[in-house]
Amino acid sequence: MTIEHPYLMFLGDAADQLAAKTAAGVAHWRPEWCLGQFRLPDCHADLGLPDMTLEEAQQAGVKTLILGVANRGGVISESWIAVLDEALDRGFDIASGLHNKVADIPAIADKAAGLGRQIFDVRHPNRSFDVASGKKRSGKRLLTVGTDCSVGKMYASLALEKEMRARGMPADFRATGQTGIFIAGDGISVDAVVADFISGSVEWLAPENEPEHWDLIEGQGSLFHASFAGVTMGLIHGSQPDALVMCHEPTRPHMRGLPDYKLPDLELCISRNVEAARLTNPNATCIGVAINTAAMGEEEALAYLKETERALGLPTQDPVRQGVDRLVDNLPA
Amino acid sequence: MTIEHPYLMFLGDAADQLAAKTAAGVAHWRPEWCLGQFRLPDCHADLGLPDMTLEEAQQAGVKTLILGVANRGGVISESWIAVLDEALDRGFDIASGLHNKVADIPAIADKAAGLGRQIFDVRHPNRSFDVASGKKRSGKRLLTVGTDCSVGKMYASLALEKEMRARGMPADFRATGQTGIFIAGDGISVDAVVADFISGSVEWLAPENEPEHWDLIEGQGSLFHASFAGVTMGLIHGSQPDALVMCHEPTRPHMRGLPDYKLPDLELCISRNVEAARLTNPNATCIGVAINTAAMGEEEALAYLKETERALGLPTQDPVRQGVDRLVDNLPA
Repeated sequence: MTIEHPYLMFLGDAADQLAAKTAAGVAHWRPEWCLGQFRLPDCHADLGLPDMTLEEAQQAGVKTLILGVANRGGVISESWIAVLDEALDRGFDIASGLHNKVADIPAIADKAAGLGRQIFDVRHPNRSFDVASGKKRSGKRLLTVGTDCSVGKMYASLALEKEMRARGMPADFRATGQTGIFIAGDGISVDAVVADFISGSVEWLAPENEPEHWDLIEGQGSLFHASFAGVTMGLIHGSQPDALVMCHEPTRPHMRGLPDYKLPDLELCISRNVEAARLTNPNATCIGVAINTAAMGEEEALAYLKETERALGLPTQDPVRQGVDRLVDNLPA
Repeated sequence: MTIEHPYLMFLGDAADQLAAKTAAGVAHWRPEWCLGQFRLPDCHADLGLPDMTLEEAQQAGVKTLILGVANRGGVISESWIAVLDEALDRGFDIASGLHNKVADIPAIADKAAGLGRQIFDVRHPNRSFDVASGKKRSGKRLLTVGTDCSVGKMYASLALEKEMRARGMPADFRATGQTGIFIAGDGISVDAVVADFISGSVEWLAPENEPEHWDLIEGQGSLFHASFAGVTMGLIHGSQPDALVMCHEPTRPHMRGLPDYKLPDLELCISRNVEAARLTNPNATCIGVAINTAAMGEEEALAYLKETERALGLPTQDPVRQGVDRLVDNLPA
């Protein structure tokens, strides 16, 4: 697919900053792609980008309007549709992370088709995939895995891409969720793929490549999450990872969305992820641990990181506080 | 949904007996539901049921025409559509296991709607599911799991249902694949569910029940299958099984569809399935092993079963040769 940049970030009438979390992630990781933001009068989010009208965005060279915001009540309102309509007139494609598909709005879909504009509903795969073949592919792959959902797998993957590119290594982030797809310009919402094709979709996402090239595949869920482990398992097998990075948030009282479920033991979690990965890549190893210590004070965080590194015998870093240089140092040759 | 019986089995122009494998499974397990078969002139399959015209089937009281056959080239031909059309006129619902949806044939869909008939495309879930809650449900559940695909999980599940019902135990087979759905009259093709909802769909399939009631859930795939393990993992977690039965076919040279992948060690496979099951049901145990020895001679088969039982310390039976009485004896109280 490939979403063309630069982007104009549409924040609509976002109730608060959290409602624009996806847009904020894109602005953080691809500031050079995000020329401005477009906000409706009742918007309570701010990315710190220049506010632009659609006309100004057109003059600035924007190619795509990004809907990286949660819409109230899940309904695409009339005021939003008027914006989408004008965006098409001004030559923009539209890329949306909403649950409801923009392509299901007849007036917008028809107009886009007539004008030759593209609509990317990134939560909804727009192609079919083959069943995974399990065949070894050339090139190297790293997959971020986690003890739970939302522990920083996307952030760690992007930090690895940044660090590796800074070292001149050929490396590409491969997105498996909506925010990641806006950041990469393409990808697959793997949790929206039909169950039989989870692994196959990842084989498609991270295809054969140069022997020295690294795909940095964004992980999803957790093998120990009672709702989503199937997605994670399929993602591990399809990735055929040479390297895993385990992501963890140490202050979480229970698994996300599951009050009765405790987080798994970190060492067991690593062991089972490596074992699953070795089914399709016998050389898979865990090369390090990425800890999200946002909820800890500096001293507590550093002590936790040091103790975890000692206990596991693996490079352990908080990508936000410390970067990921020691994880990259530990990649297999 | 619930597909009404009795059935007329439509075999179309099946190229050979294997093309009617699904229909044969239904006729084997629900002979009392299958009043007859309807074959086109070029049909090379035979279920041993009375051949009936649609008119005769109507007089016999048939409620549903079952398309349990592979169609040549994946296209629903004109000759088939004429049969479907007449079936609707005669008051039958239509239930299809084809990849192509019968409901996508406008003439048939419109006619069915006009006449108030139902079309069941059992490979395609026709409802949405919630994300799994992981909450403990009352009632007991058994899930069949396997070292590979197509090793006899459905057969074992149905054999268990038969044995348990014969003993007066409250037990219901819960179908997760097309053949099973025709046999149960309802169910979910779990491999066709969107990845995020695999476990949730199984929570829906095997809901709360009386404390002594057993759901016998048909397993799919294998935790060690590089293409489909995600489906299996989600199915295990959603089932919250009290009991697992491990199914295995000992003569298979490699994983189904994956020439480079060997079958897993049986003991490791049991261990990992039990561990996964304990995430959502800490009491889960493997209560026995079901071996498909169809490719072995009687003496070899019996020796293999005995040796496997000794090595694993678990009741081990071939459901076809021996039934499953000793597996049922080993169910937890």
